[in-house]
Amino acid sequence: MTDLKKIDTYAKKWIKEASDRIKDSFSKELTIQTKSHANDLVTDIDQATERFFIEKINSVFPDHRILGEEGFGDDVQSLEGVVWIIDPIDGTMNFVHQQRNFAISIGIFEDGVGKIGLIYDVVHDELYHAISGEGAYLNDLKIPQMRKTKLSESILGLNATWVTENRRIDSSLLAPLVKKSRGTRSYGSAALEIVYVATGRIDAYLTLRLAPWDFAAGLIIIEELGGRATNLRGEKLNMLEGGSVFFANEELHDEILKDYLHNGKW
Amino acid sequence: MTDLKKIDTYAKKWIKEASDRIKDSFSKELTIQTKSHANDLVTDIDQATERFFIEKINSVFPDHRILGEEGFGDDVQSLEGVVWIIDPIDGTMNFVHQQRNFAISIGIFEDGVGKIGLIYDVVHDELYHAISGEGAYLNDLKIPQMRKTKLSESILGLNATWVTENRRIDSSLLAPLVKKSRGTRSYGSAALEIVYVATGRIDAYLTLRLAPWDFAAGLIIIEELGGRATNLRGEKLNMLEGGSVFFANEELHDEILKDYLHNGKW
Repeated sequence: MTDLKKIDTYAKKWIKEASDRIKDSFSKELTIQTKSHANDLVTDIDQATERFFIEKINSVFPDHRILGEEGFGDDVQSLEGVVWIIDPIDGTMNFVHQQRNFAISIGIFEDGVGKIGLIYDVVHDELYHAISGEGAYLNDLKIPQMRKTKLSESILGLNATWVTENRRIDSSLLAPLVKKSRGTRSYGSAALEIVYVATGRIDAYLTLRLAPWDFAAGLIIIEELGGRATNLRGEKLNMLEGGSVFFANEELHDEILKDYLHNGKW
Repeated sequence: MTDLKKIDTYAKKWIKEASDRIKDSFSKELTIQTKSHANDLVTDIDQATERFFIEKINSVFPDHRILGEEGFGDDVQSLEGVVWIIDPIDGTMNFVHQQRNFAISIGIFEDGVGKIGLIYDVVHDELYHAISGEGAYLNDLKIPQMRKTKLSESILGLNATWVTENRRIDSSLLAPLVKKSRGTRSYGSAALEIVYVATGRIDAYLTLRLAPWDFAAGLIIIEELGGRATNLRGEKLNMLEGGSVFFANEELHDEILKDYLHNGKW
């Protein structure tokens, strides 16, 4: 039987080590790096951090496989065995422009079932973590089960992209949510937006295009707290390919799915 | 002649005192307060904090006048003399739902000219401050003059409200900015979004409806750093009535005003 505690302990240790390396890379002055091309935002630090995790995991857990954003991991075509799904820096654009509002995100699955979720807000020193069935925590504080909310009382994590003309969804579908909710926010890091849902800082997070490493850890944390994690059609998330993502408390998930997303019939 | 140093010293002292009171009010557990009505978000803390500032200012500077969000200050109809423009908690919805991402904002004007700008991110202990002509600082760190950016390399502070159907602007006017920029963010506190522009974490902040206390301090900080602060038509901001607000670095302000806002002809 897989020793989840052992895996969890190592993962947390490596996250702290990786984050120290990330913080050391920060300029001590208050200057923001510029890159001229939007596609040039994959930083050296992103890649070095993923390599760091791969090396560590391979040394202690040689039979585990790794699916990582930067592509240095394994060619993972199935979720058999233990698979680590890693985003070394979720919110790269924030990392580059803001040196804050980014996270290390690690979701660990066994035979396709989420077991350990770890999201570390490096700058604010906030580790959100869950082992399936044992509760979810922010650092040492237990996170309560998610409360239920109505849309009219809810704050949504929803980027302006998805309510204006775009290639992925008819913008008139999500636009009414902006008016009917109490307000919208957009932070630029999926992993952080998902743990904001987990802790009730926002009540839902909706987006049209994420990769598995963006939401793998968050999925485990949200489900541990009684929340719903599906795609925008209400279907199970695809852990190998990603796609649209819709995380919310049960009541709000039902209301949006039924009244605005027509139970997936769009 | 007005002793700005003295005013600045007192203002900073009172901000720290007020923020200690705000932090003491936080629940120690990880629970989020719910309020059933959106209009019910003016908290007791908001009002108590404004009263705190008014009492302090009146005791030390009896001839200064105070324009405050909660309305306990003076009936300010002109900017003659010294006027403190105060938002005791900017980002009340964040304060209630998140217990973070809100700020104390104080702008001090003399005969209509911005002299001192103070924005304090209470939870993150970050004080953004400027005395006109003497530079702007984040805590003890000098903030460099704002760098210039093109829209295609910029991150915009722009809420989804203004690019979907709303009562204040034809949404097709701002919607193209979502596609042309590198991305958008929305944090739910005008004062913080303005200092994020000041420090280059985002490159512009655009919104359709702010009161003077939402942007008074930010205006002084942005102008000290060589940025532009106007309404969305490119006109001077109205410090008594508020209105639309458009803060950005010079180059980006020019580009958006000319190419998207048609130099105010809408």
